[in-house]
Amino acid sequence: MKGYPDSIQRVVDNFRKLPGIGAKSAERLAFALLKRRREEAVRLSDAIREMAGSIGYCEQCRNYTEGTCCSICSDKGRDKQLICVVEQPEDVLAIERVGEFTGLYFILHGSISPLDGLGPEELGLEKLEALIDQLEIREIIIATNPNVAGEATAIYIARRLKGKPVQVSRIALGIPAGGNIGYADEVTMMRALEGRTRIILE
Amino acid sequence: MKGYPDSIQRVVDNFRKLPGIGAKSAERLAFALLKRRREEAVRLSDAIREMAGSIGYCEQCRNYTEGTCCSICSDKGRDKQLICVVEQPEDVLAIERVGEFTGLYFILHGSISPLDGLGPEELGLEKLEALIDQLEIREIIIATNPNVAGEATAIYIARRLKGKPVQVSRIALGIPAGGNIGYADEVTMMRALEGRTRIILE
Repeated sequence: MKGYPDSIQRVVDNFRKLPGIGAKSAERLAFALLKRRREEAVRLSDAIREMAGSIGYCEQCRNYTEGTCCSICSDKGRDKQLICVVEQPEDVLAIERVGEFTGLYFILHGSISPLDGLGPEELGLEKLEALIDQLEIREIIIATNPNVAGEATAIYIARRLKGKPVQVSRIALGIPAGGNIGYADEVTMMRALEGRTRIILE
Repeated sequence: MKGYPDSIQRVVDNFRKLPGIGAKSAERLAFALLKRRREEAVRLSDAIREMAGSIGYCEQCRNYTEGTCCSICSDKGRDKQLICVVEQPEDVLAIERVGEFTGLYFILHGSISPLDGLGPEELGLEKLEALIDQLEIREIIIATNPNVAGEATAIYIARRLKGKPVQVSRIALGIPAGGNIGYADEVTMMRALEGRTRIILE
């Protein structure tokens, strides 16, 4: 059987390494690049190369950034005594979209997972502790994912910060907006009941 | 709202232009590249750039190739008097996987679609006719997709080749292997009935 020319096959192989990209998707992407004007493929190539070369980690919050300090950490208008701890850089954008949170972030780049070699050191928890002392942080909001690893990480961080003069809180877990009570799983339902808030009428 | 650093955003924007890649997938791909070792991102970048620079069209069959003539057209072992006409380069691999077809291919790079500016000229039909005369082709198998555009293209090609000493055939349309007769749509069922073959017992 004759396959694709080598240079096409190499693009297919490299796309396949990415998550969610199977054999068929990788082929489709490579052919889509060939079907368009070649400059578009070159533009993608350049953009990837430039990103790989220019993106590092913010020395304060560990988010991706082009300089040494990210645009949020260096924004004078943000509340410097409030930190939201998230697992991934993508999570920052999800919270920024709401436009309500005015504090800083701290990115763990994962959750505690001994099997994957992710311990307190890899998650930068010493740095977080140093930051709390240094910036005299008032409150830490832990916004790790509501799954086993994320919950374990949240509890671990809370325990580790015990004794420090900082309030540690966790984002609310419950029924999502637009969700259906009848279809909620037991854990979500339990958390929604536990986290109930009083309705205050004027 | 703070977005991503520019160099990440550019990768996201370039991925989004590809078919089947939405905003979320594009972000996931960009972050997947950042999460892995940077050399992997550079390898993908290099592969895309090299492909964009090296891949051209086979001067005989119009398939993608690195030289002037593709590996199938230049293979001395293939039947040079049999041509299978397909819409896309990907279709060649689907047929090659079977390992049954030993002839050559001719790639239309689309189907007749006046709205998209795809006419006989863009599909290379003059070249196909020249090839038929030059190689004294015995049979043309039209393997365009069994949809409106593909069927129209098949009929158009068949009409155009009428009068030439070449047999024009169409791949069989019918129930796919492993398919379910009860769920077949009317058109497929009709084609399956029309195309019935006699069971010959020994």
